[in-house]
Amino acid sequence: MSKGVFITLEGGEGAGKSTLAQTLVTFLRTKNIPVILTREPGGTKEAEAIRSLVVSGDKDRFDSITEALLFNAARRHHLKHSILPALENGAWVICDRFVDSTFVYQGYVQGVDLDFLKNLHHDVCDNIFPDLTFLLDVPVDIGLYRATRRQNNSDETRFEQKGHEFHETVRSAFLALAQQHPTRYRVLDSTLSEADLANAAIAYLNSLLQQHS
Amino acid sequence: MSKGVFITLEGGEGAGKSTLAQTLVTFLRTKNIPVILTREPGGTKEAEAIRSLVVSGDKDRFDSITEALLFNAARRHHLKHSILPALENGAWVICDRFVDSTFVYQGYVQGVDLDFLKNLHHDVCDNIFPDLTFLLDVPVDIGLYRATRRQNNSDETRFEQKGHEFHETVRSAFLALAQQHPTRYRVLDSTLSEADLANAAIAYLNSLLQQHS
Repeated sequence: MSKGVFITLEGGEGAGKSTLAQTLVTFLRTKNIPVILTREPGGTKEAEAIRSLVVSGDKDRFDSITEALLFNAARRHHLKHSILPALENGAWVICDRFVDSTFVYQGYVQGVDLDFLKNLHHDVCDNIFPDLTFLLDVPVDIGLYRATRRQNNSDETRFEQKGHEFHETVRSAFLALAQQHPTRYRVLDSTLSEADLANAAIAYLNSLLQQHS
Repeated sequence: MSKGVFITLEGGEGAGKSTLAQTLVTFLRTKNIPVILTREPGGTKEAEAIRSLVVSGDKDRFDSITEALLFNAARRHHLKHSILPALENGAWVICDRFVDSTFVYQGYVQGVDLDFLKNLHHDVCDNIFPDLTFLLDVPVDIGLYRATRRQNNSDETRFEQKGHEFHETVRSAFLALAQQHPTRYRVLDSTLSEADLANAAIAYLNSLLQQHS
């Protein structure tokens, strides 16, 4: 049995990551490919407990270095107890956000030293990166408009409250990462219709499937 | 106003740290010296929330590298929001356990790379060490006997369940740290009576007070 494929979705708020993740899972299941859908921070009961420490309560309760430690702790647990066992068993893993979000939000945006974050990923998470990362790129105004339309998300709205400049920095940081890692990243234009976006992503999955068959 | 003095108490289970900490606080207050008593992991509401993630539930829910990250996250918050402001305001700080406990329990005992732990302390906690560390040294059998007599500690008994060899390693690791840092460490013989132990510690405090007056 061959190892599974590790795919992450990255991008700012309202880029459509959750919807696309679900579409990819459905597509893979129609192909009879075992797949798990997960997310960060979180993904296991213990990592979700760490997530809830960070995302609930006063938005400034932890500074960005402390957040980076907590996210790395959650990521190590998530990798060890969910992602890596699934991949070993031949399942594909679709993960909504991963280490690149730490580089972007704690690093590029909040100014935590990128070498510190890279060393942490090396020491704590064995420098594991996805096989494929979809960056859902969307102009900030459109992303924010979509994010503010969401319901039932009242305890996790802190990113939405950060303002235009914050989101511009997030967008350009993700684009910079995509440029630095062109073989891993696929940038998708998230202003496309949901169907066209799904088709663009599925085209990449089909080419991956051919490599794996 | 001069800065306060940062004093930590280290040692294995049942060595008498909590009792001695309270005695030192009482002594300093009789001298009209402002003092706070705190502990690790914990010491602030947010750091206590991280502590309870680690000490409650299945004792193996987090591996030792993840524990080290969580303890460093808690320590950074504790330093920034409690210990350092108190010292700046001229208060003395008595802290039950600090970074040396991470070196001993996650490093020497559980095998996490000591350089990783030292780098983490450097990057996350600005390499801050106490001015004075009392090591309460006690033969393992006596320490365990004392620890098992305690009441109302049912959710934090995981250290007590580890067995004799574990506690021997803890003891020799603390003694090794004390040897490496002879100017900072004072080793106290914790088989002394409570009064004699208190007098030995207070003698050191008196000499510190003379330096500070």
